[in-house]
Amino acid sequence: MPELRKDPILGRWVIIATERAKRPKDFKRDIVNLPEGDCPFCRGNEHETSAELFSIRDDKGDWRVRVIPSRKPFLKSDDKLWKKGKGPYDLMAAFGSHETVIETPEHIANMADLEVAQIKDVLRVYCIRAGEIEKDLRIKYVLLFKNYGYDAGAGPIKHSRSQIIAAPVNLKRVKEELEGAKSYYNYHQRCVFCDICSQELSQKERIVLDEEGFLALVPFAPRFPFEIWIMPKKHSPYFCGINDGEMYGLAKVMKKILTKLKVLLNDPAYNYVIHTAPFKRQYPGYWSTIDDDFHWHIEITPRLTRVAGFEWGSGFYICPVLPEEAAKFLREI
Amino acid sequence: MPELRKDPILGRWVIIATERAKRPKDFKRDIVNLPEGDCPFCRGNEHETSAELFSIRDDKGDWRVRVIPSRKPFLKSDDKLWKKGKGPYDLMAAFGSHETVIETPEHIANMADLEVAQIKDVLRVYCIRAGEIEKDLRIKYVLLFKNYGYDAGAGPIKHSRSQIIAAPVNLKRVKEELEGAKSYYNYHQRCVFCDICSQELSQKERIVLDEEGFLALVPFAPRFPFEIWIMPKKHSPYFCGINDGEMYGLAKVMKKILTKLKVLLNDPAYNYVIHTAPFKRQYPGYWSTIDDDFHWHIEITPRLTRVAGFEWGSGFYICPVLPEEAAKFLREI
Repeated sequence: MPELRKDPILGRWVIIATERAKRPKDFKRDIVNLPEGDCPFCRGNEHETSAELFSIRDDKGDWRVRVIPSRKPFLKSDDKLWKKGKGPYDLMAAFGSHETVIETPEHIANMADLEVAQIKDVLRVYCIRAGEIEKDLRIKYVLLFKNYGYDAGAGPIKHSRSQIIAAPVNLKRVKEELEGAKSYYNYHQRCVFCDICSQELSQKERIVLDEEGFLALVPFAPRFPFEIWIMPKKHSPYFCGINDGEMYGLAKVMKKILTKLKVLLNDPAYNYVIHTAPFKRQYPGYWSTIDDDFHWHIEITPRLTRVAGFEWGSGFYICPVLPEEAAKFLREI
Repeated sequence: MPELRKDPILGRWVIIATERAKRPKDFKRDIVNLPEGDCPFCRGNEHETSAELFSIRDDKGDWRVRVIPSRKPFLKSDDKLWKKGKGPYDLMAAFGSHETVIETPEHIANMADLEVAQIKDVLRVYCIRAGEIEKDLRIKYVLLFKNYGYDAGAGPIKHSRSQIIAAPVNLKRVKEELEGAKSYYNYHQRCVFCDICSQELSQKERIVLDEEGFLALVPFAPRFPFEIWIMPKKHSPYFCGINDGEMYGLAKVMKKILTKLKVLLNDPAYNYVIHTAPFKRQYPGYWSTIDDDFHWHIEITPRLTRVAGFEWGSGFYICPVLPEEAAKFLREI
């Protein structure tokens, strides 16, 4: 049975995904490219996946975006949310959910190659599903993210999709960001992300795009070369608070940025993760200022370099490209 | 000029290593295997490296372990330790040092294949160099680590070596560990690592080796499959506090563990990082209990899986192997 275990020193929760358990010999790096006709995510092969949880359909009733349970879920809702201790250790059920968003009925690998309207539909599905998941009070956070390409951790099937994971614990990195933003707010009484937007708009060195109310920029201290953040210029804590027009603008910006990565960096593997303030119902006291101090954004990280022991062991990252040069390079097309 | 930049939200320092700056086309994954005779780290080719900083020599005067400045240093001591702010951002000189420890004069790739006495000499060199670096009061932490194999971030030359980085800032991951251990100590008045040792000794499920006063174990909540920690059973905050006999015992345990990884997991890439309490001279007030609450250990992480966007973006790791099964498997030979 899979479970969540907490590192007793760092407080980081880890999913022990025993159902994916592998023998050591299974760790070989095989890349299987499925013939196109066999793709279970293409229109016509719906019977090869689990029953859909949700879909957006066109006027003829054909689906445009389809959500199914992950075929290899890390977290599942069919268990009680048990919690227990053992000596200095804490563990709990691997409770939650794990969904796959099939972003197009066509066999297209990279989100960069979808139409803007299609990307907008994907964003809309994110918000609808997150809203649904929020109803379960045992869920603490919903993470919306994408793995594209082998080095980004994607599976062998080259059909554009993303993932929604709902977890019963706060995620360490997200929590640190919330706490960091709160601490900045407490000192300055201003949102750190809003301050970053103004600084970037006045320096103009790290901005890649400034369109539709969104900034796409290379962060001042990125962990990875060509890392890009997209954020609304207007202060907005909740990703799911975006309206229809903003969603369309964001889809346009995402299409442009992902196309730049594809063309300029030779179709690299990449990840993106959406960081939003957690559900409003959480932290009624502790996070009372969260509407003021957090600001949603998307972190896009192309996978161009390896991460060495120094970085894993110290949390001290080495970025081999000057952020200002990365931004200049990405602005060029 | 390389510099350190601080993420204004997370407080994480990043090295912007502009001297390594690459054009996007340079990110191709080339592996160059150097012919053995051309290895600059082998005995006889000393003229191909910078002047040595330190060495351990045998009775005939031949070196056994040799320390040189890194050929591509991330941090350098030939700059002033300047610090400045720019709007919400903080930056400082990439001040510090970066040394390479050549672990053998022979062209041997994996530390697992060195003699125990040779590994002991490497450990001794770590302590001697760290003691030397400590004299510079601008240095906050010394990280001792190894990258072995391509997936662990090692370079193309297959000659066993490790690295010593001295940084002018506290490293995020290490600081979190110090703070986590302190917080556990404040609550329980016991060292969390000592409690982990007793728990593991009574459960006996995750111990791989229990020899020479050291435990080698798979942690309860590992981030990576087959991750192993080696720690002294006796409470000891400072790695460099180990005596000659303990150093020899540790070398024996390391040789056994690295050989197990090599044989059982098919010579995987791996990293190890030594986590020790920082120099005694630091934190005279804040860390006043550090002798009681921290406990040095070595974290060894084979690189068998890819890390996906979910993990980077959330700090929420997925380990596909049950730690108890990993330990059982590693105990078998």
